[in-house]
Amino acid sequence: MNSFGTIFRISVFGESHGPAVGVTMDGCPHGIALSEEDLLPDLERRKSGAKGTTPRTETDSPEFISGVHNGHTTGAPLTVIFRNGNVRSADYDSLKDMPRPGHADLTARVKFKGFNDPRGGGHFSGRLTVCLVAAGAIAKKVCEGISIRAKLVEAGGLTDVDAAIDAALTAGDSIGGIIECRATGIPAGLGEPFFNSVESVISHLAFSIPAIKGIEFGSGFGAARTRGSVHNDSIIARSGKTSTNNAGGINGGITNGNELIVRIAVKPTSSIGLPQRTVNMSTGALETLVVLGRHDVCIALRVPVVAEAITAIALADLLLQKRD
Amino acid sequence: MNSFGTIFRISVFGESHGPAVGVTMDGCPHGIALSEEDLLPDLERRKSGAKGTTPRTETDSPEFISGVHNGHTTGAPLTVIFRNGNVRSADYDSLKDMPRPGHADLTARVKFKGFNDPRGGGHFSGRLTVCLVAAGAIAKKVCEGISIRAKLVEAGGLTDVDAAIDAALTAGDSIGGIIECRATGIPAGLGEPFFNSVESVISHLAFSIPAIKGIEFGSGFGAARTRGSVHNDSIIARSGKTSTNNAGGINGGITNGNELIVRIAVKPTSSIGLPQRTVNMSTGALETLVVLGRHDVCIALRVPVVAEAITAIALADLLLQKRD
Amino acid sequence: MNSFGTIFRISVFGESHGPAVGVTMDGCPHGIALSEEDLLPDLERRKSGAKGTTPRTETDSPEFISGVHNGHTTGAPLTVIFRNGNVRSADYDSLKDMPRPGHADLTARVKFKGFNDPRGGGHFSGRLTVCLVAAGAIAKKVCEGISIRAKLVEAGGLTDVDAAIDAALTAGDSIGGIIECRATGIPAGLGEPFFNSVESVISHLAFSIPAIKGIEFGSGFGAARTRGSVHNDSIIARSGKTSTNNAGGINGGITNGNELIVRIAVKPTSSIGLPQRTVNMSTGALETLVVLGRHDVCIALRVPVVAEAITAIALADLLLQKRD
Amino acid sequence: MNSFGTIFRISVFGESHGPAVGVTMDGCPHGIALSEEDLLPDLERRKSGAKGTTPRTETDSPEFISGVHNGHTTGAPLTVIFRNGNVRSADYDSLKDMPRPGHADLTARVKFKGFNDPRGGGHFSGRLTVCLVAAGAIAKKVCEGISIRAKLVEAGGLTDVDAAIDAALTAGDSIGGIIECRATGIPAGLGEPFFNSVESVISHLAFSIPAIKGIEFGSGFGAARTRGSVHNDSIIARSGKTSTNNAGGINGGITNGNELIVRIAVKPTSSIGLPQRTVNMSTGALETLVVLGRHDVCIALRVPVVAEAITAIALADLLLQKRD
Repeated sequence: MNSFGTIFRISVFGESHGPAVGVTMDGCPHGIALSEEDLLPDLERRKSGAKGTTPRTETDSPEFISGVHNGHTTGAPLTVIFRNGNVRSADYDSLKDMPRPGHADLTARVKFKGFNDPRGGGHFSGRLTVCLVAAGAIAKKVCEGISIRAKLVEAGGLTDVDAAIDAALTAGDSIGGIIECRATGIPAGLGEPFFNSVESVISHLAFSIPAIKGIEFGSGFGAARTRGSVHNDSIIARSGKTSTNNAGGINGGITNGNELIVRIAVKPTSSIGLPQRTVNMSTGALETLVVLGRHDVCIALRVPVVAEAITAIALADLLLQKRD
Repeated sequence: MNSFGTIFRISVFGESHGPAVGVTMDGCPHGIALSEEDLLPDLERRKSGAKGTTPRTETDSPEFISGVHNGHTTGAPLTVIFRNGNVRSADYDSLKDMPRPGHADLTARVKFKGFNDPRGGGHFSGRLTVCLVAAGAIAKKVCEGISIRAKLVEAGGLTDVDAAIDAALTAGDSIGGIIECRATGIPAGLGEPFFNSVESVISHLAFSIPAIKGIEFGSGFGAARTRGSVHNDSIIARSGKTSTNNAGGINGGITNGNELIVRIAVKPTSSIGLPQRTVNMSTGALETLVVLGRHDVCIALRVPVVAEAITAIALADLLLQKRD
Repeated sequence: MNSFGTIFRISVFGESHGPAVGVTMDGCPHGIALSEEDLLPDLERRKSGAKGTTPRTETDSPEFISGVHNGHTTGAPLTVIFRNGNVRSADYDSLKDMPRPGHADLTARVKFKGFNDPRGGGHFSGRLTVCLVAAGAIAKKVCEGISIRAKLVEAGGLTDVDAAIDAALTAGDSIGGIIECRATGIPAGLGEPFFNSVESVISHLAFSIPAIKGIEFGSGFGAARTRGSVHNDSIIARSGKTSTNNAGGINGGITNGNELIVRIAVKPTSSIGLPQRTVNMSTGALETLVVLGRHDVCIALRVPVVAEAITAIALADLLLQKRD
Repeated sequence: MNSFGTIFRISVFGESHGPAVGVTMDGCPHGIALSEEDLLPDLERRKSGAKGTTPRTETDSPEFISGVHNGHTTGAPLTVIFRNGNVRSADYDSLKDMPRPGHADLTARVKFKGFNDPRGGGHFSGRLTVCLVAAGAIAKKVCEGISIRAKLVEAGGLTDVDAAIDAALTAGDSIGGIIECRATGIPAGLGEPFFNSVESVISHLAFSIPAIKGIEFGSGFGAARTRGSVHNDSIIARSGKTSTNNAGGINGGITNGNELIVRIAVKPTSSIGLPQRTVNMSTGALETLVVLGRHDVCIALRVPVVAEAITAIALADLLLQKRD
């Protein structure tokens, strides 16, 4: 299943080194002013090039295939594709039998019996997050009145992200990080009591982002270490406003009108320049692998806009399910 | 949406003080030996009564309504209901206008415009997890050859769970905890590259359990604080076996054949005997609320079997999607 | 899949001779006044007892399990069950190896490898339509302002239904019939351009009714024999009102505000008292089968209220997807 | 919803005069040999140009965007697009306020509040069936061992299709027709007892084809006019083979191993050269409309390959749900 959503439903397709990657949004409301340029600011934030990201930049030019007419969404499925630029697929031939530790090389090979496109990670590539960002930029327009903002709050165990990246660069290694996403202006009452709780929907989307290892809402894992008398948020207004926000804006799976707070843990970039041990799938021998090329030292640097995107996609779908 | 799944699809229904709660499993394979007694061991583990749980016990007697014939599943939808026992609903009238901090009282009222059944938390009650446990016990049978086992690894911030509970009992307060669930014997290749990653499916289900604030796989939030050279698991056999297991058994959203490791954070029980501040919804005045009755000091004590259940449900659905 | 719908989602469960049959409605709006008595008029119309139907009557007593509180829907899943009355299952043992022509005996056996409950047709029984009728009675309340009415317009090839039934009774045979369902008061704009066209949704539901062999909208099969200049309905008002209604209220899969017209073809009751040829599945021998008991001469007599039900269910779901 | 399917899931997108139309197949098995050329024979059959079809031909060149690598399907989503050729959109400006009788002009306008792309029918255009044909050609490969073949069995009320078309050409009018699709080699046991009956799935897809007014299986509407003793198909072998095939290969919603027979009714092409009456949506005045250009006299001529496509899509999805 490469689709998700009930009313605002998104599907992604494409491989890293294929002709293009793309996303179809079904159920996007008609009449939203939209141009390809509107997607550029968020796409720019996802791009590499800054310190700690790979110097290999991609041109992320969105091309509307359907669903937009006269500068507005039509209500029909909206498809955006991104042509893949010049790629050097030859690099991957030598890796074909050497699954990189931490990557999906081996699981993709097993699942698809070797028929998967292995070039650049194929359909498992982080490249696909460009689709999420495009969909997120449009979802943000559906979430009128809601402000969503994510940032990297910790990298390599340090809140001084810059220092952490410098240290990793020196070591020739990679580091992980934690993204915090906050959203205000959300009406109370979104979400469902059971399987479509707000946390269920957001976490489902979050774990489709490559490299995510954990997610927490409000007090999160800290809640497990607190007492109820401290953790319960006192309600101080009929609007549902609370004095503290350990709930992170959600009770019983339903938004309570307070700020939504979600944090996601990003593992260190799997691609590193240091030698690693893996198995040669054709011979069975254990070998040392050195992955050449230039990689993101801290892929988490590029994830905040993706976190905003999946939050916006989730909220858009929940908003469109709201009646009255 | 109170349903989840692609092939093995479960739906829950019922309110805490209504006639019954129940679960329908659609897509359960035919020919599985099954009796109501088979569900009792897991149901027993969820029950209260032990130290740290409420002394008010429920009779959890499963009743098959459909889908079982001659001691085997038929392949038609399998519905199990649990009649609700004697309940004292009068207690809830006084709470009607006083939403309890940390509960879904206020969000349920807003979402359903006051038409929700507020007695015992209604459809938002932890009572509904009995349905998950029943479905999980059946899902475990679908997951033949897979062993799933969860335990409470930390409560109130201590690994000495017993000591933590004693302290909370003395304080008249409640505490949270962390559950770790591990599963072995899972074939490589389950899950989908994008929206139906193994983590997406499990987390979606996990956040339908009341009181869950976070989830992590393998190294989880710890991954954000490590370096890639440490985090990447060396592959040491063509089977995909790795030397370490920071991945928690999943790469690129697909199982890799190693042990699945998932941890979930449970907040402290919201119902506590101590006075709390809330708003009177009819007058708007801030008031002090004391919730009477006996409650679970640490609801996390009862969650391990629920964590196993949702893991089994997720794996059963993914297994049934596997071909060859 | 025993579930259908996007927002107003229904699931059925149960076997003819099991403890009960039932239906869960997920996504039913809160605040609808509802009692079990409200379902009785439609349930009564489905019952047997009249000329041409079996004299063996069932007690169809709906029992709300969830989703109704203080005489109103709560917004949580609404489950209704019907306990099965005294059934004589012994009758079916002799049929176990003799699949009845025209029934699902053989296909059920093949699909579920003999684990299906064969008694009374099990999950394939027409008994299950009581669930559709219950859901339909509730869906009609969701379809406020819409009037839905179906009738048997032809039986055994005659518009004089009474004469047709008398003839079939005399012959000891069974006959089929055609039901026409019309609905007025439907707003224009329901349905989706492609896979969820109004016709797609209604036909999907209609073919879950046992014994249905065909469906047509507006001019239906007659359209294939007409010319465009005759068939196109002239538009005579900005509301979309047309002079004729060959479209049956739908253009491009979307309601146009005119009367919805749908007709379904019901085959003759498969259970007849006359001797029939079938294969003995254990010996492979061809044998003559005589099905004892009393049967509906014309099951189509009982289908109009079921046709209304599935139309109401479809419209309720489409209405709840409409925004603005 | 512009998606359909459980495992083999297809989504369509695009407008007639937009950059392209396309289809994404999710859940297509890996390892199927596939090239763009493989789609051409079926695409050719859908094309216009023959007597009775419009002389305005489109170039239907399929372009794989994803899901194919080294001449085989990868198992990841497979997207095919068809660039739209030179279109003369200016023609449609004059029609903007004059909804054509029999078309979706008015319902599209109402549903999408005028934001729909009206050029060439936009997303409602028959052009979209090229996507179904492409998906069908791939689905046929999934349906290994199954032969699916459809033909036009009646046009304008005549089985002599040629004579009917000549008459319509002379009259400057359009005619409808009936397509019969037959499939052999289908294993018994496909389909679900209730909402996903084989008929439900096929009819759901069939009514997404523009201009379809009815569908019937096996004896179809004729069943309503027969007696049970004639209609029931005698079972003559343990394989489920029957002497007659009034069931059309389906009992209780499940395939029985006999030939699948389905017929669909296609209305006369709505676009005709004769003057028609409609309402001017901006003035409210009733006016006479003459639609210029050259149209299909009998669009049903181009539907057989589309009928095969939706049958193949339905069967592929049902086959992939079959276990063992």
